[in-house]
Amino acid sequence: MANPTAAMLVIGDEILSGRTRDSNMHFLANELTRHGIRLMEARVVADDHGTIVQAVRALSEQWDHVFTSGGIGPTHDDITADAIAAAFGAKIGHRADAMALLQAHYDRAGLPFNDARQRMARIPDGATLIDNPVSTAPGFTLGNVHVMAGVPKIFEAMVASVMPTLTGGDPLLSQTLRVNRGEGEVADAFRRLAAAYPDLSMGSYPFIQNGAHGTNLVIRGTDPAQIDAAMAELAALFP
Amino acid sequence: MANPTAAMLVIGDEILSGRTRDSNMHFLANELTRHGIRLMEARVVADDHGTIVQAVRALSEQWDHVFTSGGIGPTHDDITADAIAAAFGAKIGHRADAMALLQAHYDRAGLPFNDARQRMARIPDGATLIDNPVSTAPGFTLGNVHVMAGVPKIFEAMVASVMPTLTGGDPLLSQTLRVNRGEGEVADAFRRLAAAYPDLSMGSYPFIQNGAHGTNLVIRGTDPAQIDAAMAELAALFP
Repeated sequence: MANPTAAMLVIGDEILSGRTRDSNMHFLANELTRHGIRLMEARVVADDHGTIVQAVRALSEQWDHVFTSGGIGPTHDDITADAIAAAFGAKIGHRADAMALLQAHYDRAGLPFNDARQRMARIPDGATLIDNPVSTAPGFTLGNVHVMAGVPKIFEAMVASVMPTLTGGDPLLSQTLRVNRGEGEVADAFRRLAAAYPDLSMGSYPFIQNGAHGTNLVIRGTDPAQIDAAMAELAALFP
Repeated sequence: MANPTAAMLVIGDEILSGRTRDSNMHFLANELTRHGIRLMEARVVADDHGTIVQAVRALSEQWDHVFTSGGIGPTHDDITADAIAAAFGAKIGHRADAMALLQAHYDRAGLPFNDARQRMARIPDGATLIDNPVSTAPGFTLGNVHVMAGVPKIFEAMVASVMPTLTGGDPLLSQTLRVNRGEGEVADAFRRLAAAYPDLSMGSYPFIQNGAHGTNLVIRGTDPAQIDAAMAELAALFP
């Protein structure tokens, strides 16, 4: 069975300006790999309506799933929900189910459920809510796009809510051999091994440690027996 | 003067699989901001020729500069240089200037300058070399695309080599006010302030610390006097 594919769309000026270092992409990449979904592309775009609409359309047409982070809070720069609705030509308004969740949350906290907070109940028609156990304001899934918060703790909780609803594939496995030689020394033999195993993907990642050059040789695939066989050959090449 | 724009293209299966956490995007974002170049978009793509060609073409047409990281080493999965050449319809081969640099480097190190290592001298016709003070193998600039290594130490050294050759703009400045209130409480006043300063960009970034909700309110722009004025109003709103 072919593995499902996915893209990630990180929405936020603060990432592009360097103010904030994104951590959601790395978290999602690992979760998807574990679930046998291939992350094929990731993009970071600014808080701009037209840009978000265009990126969502392009990615949702090309891949099985799109995961977005950022821009679903109560402030004026939170424009993701409206952009997703526009990308799908869906109506958007304060939805009763999200209003009820948030009303109860702010009642419990003794805080006013003001206009800004009600903004977080703007959910496109036809979307399914994504549970937010951290701070209640929900994400949502519309079509094949899963829309989540940017705050890492909330993003991670929402990914945990969404993941069990998705059909994964065979887990994407990898094994690594670390060798204390530079890439230039191992390249020829590694290239021949890669050619001998066309169903596996092999990558080479150099590092410098204490001034010495080393290389991590990584073999990826979905068939554990084939990976084991290739790793045994690799280990024999570089004992 | 309008600030020049840029995009980043991170090339590497190891980022998309979650094996490696990219740090080059965050580094470049800060360097560009300091130089007055606006990072408008970033993409991460797989080690796939057609995908890289398509992304390079799209980004180099849309933005003033494109910075790539990854895929210029000696192994079979290092396919960036050929993809950049293809994107621009340029010829590529072992270029004499890069061959001379690398030959001298491996002679000094007493290592054979073998086929794999010579692969790092594959540079498109018409490209300018980017100096690599860490490990010699050069990056290059072709058209408006700056092609650099993925290993962070080398990427950072190459960015330092390239940056002085680029015309920047007014530095992109920002100031932050940290308030111990949730976003929902500050949103209305912040929205009105943002509307009063159309030349500035204002963003709101919630955080949770010791269980309490707080918000960083960020004002960005290129005119220091205007940012100061807006910050003074903001501080008066949330003393």
